[in-house]
Amino acid sequence: MDELSLWHRFKRYYVRAETIGLSIDISRMYFADTFFSQMQDSMGRAFKEMDALEKGETANPDESRMVGHYWLRAPELSPTPEIRAAITQMVDDIKSFAAAVHGGTITSPRGKRFTHLMVIGIGGSALGPQFVGDALGGWPMSFGHGGRDDIRSGEPPDDHRVPHLQRRWATPRMQVSFCDNTDPDGIDRTLDRIGSALATALTVVISKSGRTAETGNGMLEVQHAYERAGLEFAPCAVAITQEGSKLDQLAKSEKWLKRFGMWDWVGGRTSELSAVGLLPAALQGCDIDAMLAGAAACDAVTRVPDVPTNPAALLALMWFHAGDGRGSKDMVILPYKDRLALLGKYLQQLVMESLGKRLDRSGRVVHQGITVYGNKGSTDQHAYVQQLRDGLNNFFVTFIEVGKDRVGPSIDVEENVTCGDYLHGFLLGTRKALYEAERESITLTIDEVSPRSVGVLIALFERAVGLYASLVDVNAYHQPGVEAGKKAAAEVIEIQRALLAAMGDKPGNHQTAESWAQTIGQPDQVETVFSVLEHLATNRPGSVKSQPGTSPFDTTFGRG
Amino acid sequence: MDELSLWHRFKRYYVRAETIGLSIDISRMYFADTFFSQMQDSMGRAFKEMDALEKGETANPDESRMVGHYWLRAPELSPTPEIRAAITQMVDDIKSFAAAVHGGTITSPRGKRFTHLMVIGIGGSALGPQFVGDALGGWPMSFGHGGRDDIRSGEPPDDHRVPHLQRRWATPRMQVSFCDNTDPDGIDRTLDRIGSALATALTVVISKSGRTAETGNGMLEVQHAYERAGLEFAPCAVAITQEGSKLDQLAKSEKWLKRFGMWDWVGGRTSELSAVGLLPAALQGCDIDAMLAGAAACDAVTRVPDVPTNPAALLALMWFHAGDGRGSKDMVILPYKDRLALLGKYLQQLVMESLGKRLDRSGRVVHQGITVYGNKGSTDQHAYVQQLRDGLNNFFVTFIEVGKDRVGPSIDVEENVTCGDYLHGFLLGTRKALYEAERESITLTIDEVSPRSVGVLIALFERAVGLYASLVDVNAYHQPGVEAGKKAAAEVIEIQRALLAAMGDKPGNHQTAESWAQTIGQPDQVETVFSVLEHLATNRPGSVKSQPGTSPFDTTFGRG
Repeated sequence: MDELSLWHRFKRYYVRAETIGLSIDISRMYFADTFFSQMQDSMGRAFKEMDALEKGETANPDESRMVGHYWLRAPELSPTPEIRAAITQMVDDIKSFAAAVHGGTITSPRGKRFTHLMVIGIGGSALGPQFVGDALGGWPMSFGHGGRDDIRSGEPPDDHRVPHLQRRWATPRMQVSFCDNTDPDGIDRTLDRIGSALATALTVVISKSGRTAETGNGMLEVQHAYERAGLEFAPCAVAITQEGSKLDQLAKSEKWLKRFGMWDWVGGRTSELSAVGLLPAALQGCDIDAMLAGAAACDAVTRVPDVPTNPAALLALMWFHAGDGRGSKDMVILPYKDRLALLGKYLQQLVMESLGKRLDRSGRVVHQGITVYGNKGSTDQHAYVQQLRDGLNNFFVTFIEVGKDRVGPSIDVEENVTCGDYLHGFLLGTRKALYEAERESITLTIDEVSPRSVGVLIALFERAVGLYASLVDVNAYHQPGVEAGKKAAAEVIEIQRALLAAMGDKPGNHQTAESWAQTIGQPDQVETVFSVLEHLATNRPGSVKSQPGTSPFDTTFGRG
Repeated sequence: MDELSLWHRFKRYYVRAETIGLSIDISRMYFADTFFSQMQDSMGRAFKEMDALEKGETANPDESRMVGHYWLRAPELSPTPEIRAAITQMVDDIKSFAAAVHGGTITSPRGKRFTHLMVIGIGGSALGPQFVGDALGGWPMSFGHGGRDDIRSGEPPDDHRVPHLQRRWATPRMQVSFCDNTDPDGIDRTLDRIGSALATALTVVISKSGRTAETGNGMLEVQHAYERAGLEFAPCAVAITQEGSKLDQLAKSEKWLKRFGMWDWVGGRTSELSAVGLLPAALQGCDIDAMLAGAAACDAVTRVPDVPTNPAALLALMWFHAGDGRGSKDMVILPYKDRLALLGKYLQQLVMESLGKRLDRSGRVVHQGITVYGNKGSTDQHAYVQQLRDGLNNFFVTFIEVGKDRVGPSIDVEENVTCGDYLHGFLLGTRKALYEAERESITLTIDEVSPRSVGVLIALFERAVGLYASLVDVNAYHQPGVEAGKKAAAEVIEIQRALLAAMGDKPGNHQTAESWAQTIGQPDQVETVFSVLEHLATNRPGSVKSQPGTSPFDTTFGRG
């Protein structure tokens, strides 16, 4: 299509949703003009299903639960007065708690203001807080930037250390670190980074089920670190979990500082606007009311069952078009803005865990899904635009453009050209180069990166995922495929226990992996036995020893 | 395949390369036992081509250059004594320079020790330093952790602030920040983070060609920040670029602190073991000799043209098998170790930019490539293992296992079970769950994360990419597809210049985008004009104003 025809197509399909500061341009997707009418019935069904879900229907039948993340930003739409009251109470509680922490009413046991925030969680309990923290923090979030003297003094850092910057971004009220894995070295590194500021660190442990292994392990490691430093953990610990869960019971019995609830009608990957995301954001000084208002306004726009003006519906349809409703194209997320670099990771979970399903809702084997990856532009241009333009045509790009370049004026890097003009030019230039090579792209534009626009983006993609799931007839709200790996991991741990028990306490009795597998009565699990023995010998050198043989498989293992 | 048969397959194909502390397990790739013999001729050719390349053949004919990144860690293999001497000199220079900076012989203009390192670069000039910094830093790298009081005092931070950790990791000698984009807000945030420590910040500007726009813009912004803070830039600035480049000339004329060379025979994506990667690593206190030795040892192992014992050859063959030599499966990189979380991003460039090609070496249209994504396990399990196990079977996983859990002993999180046992169990469990669902995977195991093993990994994947490129007959060493986007971006900047010129200086003369496109004589470029006008009105509100119309396309733009 020549440039002028493309302009006419652009004008025809362009949607600017003024109330949410968002535009969507789908002109570079090669759908036929008849596509919307072809999809009319399916989209009608999708809107109806979404409406039923928002009204409280049990939309996740195999888990017998409602799916209510939309109520979090519009409690008045909740199906019961109890849910409405609970949401309102949660938001109030979070704001009061954050205000008390910031104001010094709630302090560390020794009376010092909390200056640091440690968030322990994984998956849906980490990706949202990490994305939002990085998008909205005046300071780096995910790596818990120091400002150690500020931390020590217990006062927020001076806002004007760099005279040439007029920063609008509030300096975060607390520096944040994340513990999002069961990697011992990773936990050591995070604790090391916090250093002596652990004395004024508030730790938030997030697990909806209250029994996520990685999170439980992280909690024990961090608790241990407090104790080794002569600090009490419980008065610095906050739990976010479902009432009555293992974590909830623990927090209650150990008298933790505070507990916030989770509800069965909020899934992990759509929990950013529950306490899971709101508490860390509020503690960092983010305006959570604005985030909620942005999401609510986006919901209001995207709830309207009118495809040509509904950005979420357009996204869902474009995903369907791009991948033939079978996910045959990868979704490349390219925000041209450093602050949105974690959006791709956030969407990786939201999209892939929601849509990546073996069965459709009638139980037919479909192996659905859409693969998502991407970091930020123009940086990623230098990593893989070579392949995007010239190589496999196995993707479509979602460009995310941000209107506002920066707070304050820019210098010229050439006459009448700024750094931000280049960023803008690279987005347009790359999009054009891809278009010339017949690679499809969608462009989303937001006015600026702000609590409100971040709320808008979260709500936009949540709804697009829901609508697309209807189009391809999968349940977007369960994750039956994750249990097998957890179960198999538990079996590995059991094999380890069996091996350590079988070895007894006495030195000697060295055997090969094949022999040990026989000894513990699991001869078919020999590869796992081999791997566990190697791991034990490496990491418990005082307890399990290995003796090399002529091949790796002849290595013998045993005590002492 | 049942567990016992799988164990036999594992034993048959397992390779442990003791000299480089690396194992590779390909038993969970479903190639036929005849596959190696089928591929024998192709692999023979690939080995021969690699040999010729290592001997100095012009392996990148359309850029008429040699491809010599292998010589960087084995200068004795260089084709000429001049190259050999230049490499040796570079490594010596880097070590002396870093020692002088650390020792306080080279200081900031006011005589204070340099405490902070700002790296300005993008793509091949950022991804390697970021990966290595994050993998080997005792402190967080990519977000430039503060320790502000330590920075102020000019002394390395105290190593024993956290009493329960016996850290082997050297505290980095300098805190590092990266400027890897032309995002104004991103640059502001990085500068803001450095704050007053800019007075003792050393800035390294990296661009092989010396004319990378993003890097040039970042340099001007950072230079401006120094000046606004009353600091001199040149005595704090180091250039890494080809001799005689625009950047080299600038550095020379402005009398920068130091210039390091780049050579035409090192491509950006294989430059981590040139000054590009070695200088930032050395300044951070990393043992670059060990990195180089690891890479050299890996080259020695993977140079041997014997498929069954050559880990790089096995990788290349498995990539070929998985994607039928057409890249039909995405490569998911899952290191179970926080420190390796950036490996996937690093490989995204190395693999996708090298292999994503339109033409094969005979000029036939092939649209080759392999898509790469992934962060770290077990974290990513909670993001998208649902899709990997149940959804689209459009990928193969490369698990990366690290033998050593942490420095020092672990607490038990359950009786006789540590945090690290869980990490290990999750890797095995997830791999098993994927295998049951007929999803393929490769497992690489390294002893530990260390300068040496990071060198090994870099060399391993560099060679695997080179061998695979031979197998699918593409030139891995050029990137013809990146020019179109840059050219189109330059056209956008030209349109902006034309618009600003056409508007003149006087207020008034408001026109729509369509009208302005006519005015500047580019009627077919109206969409670009529209986008540029919106961007100008948002970011130069004092200079270009917009007046809303009845639709976005009726908006008028003009001065004042």
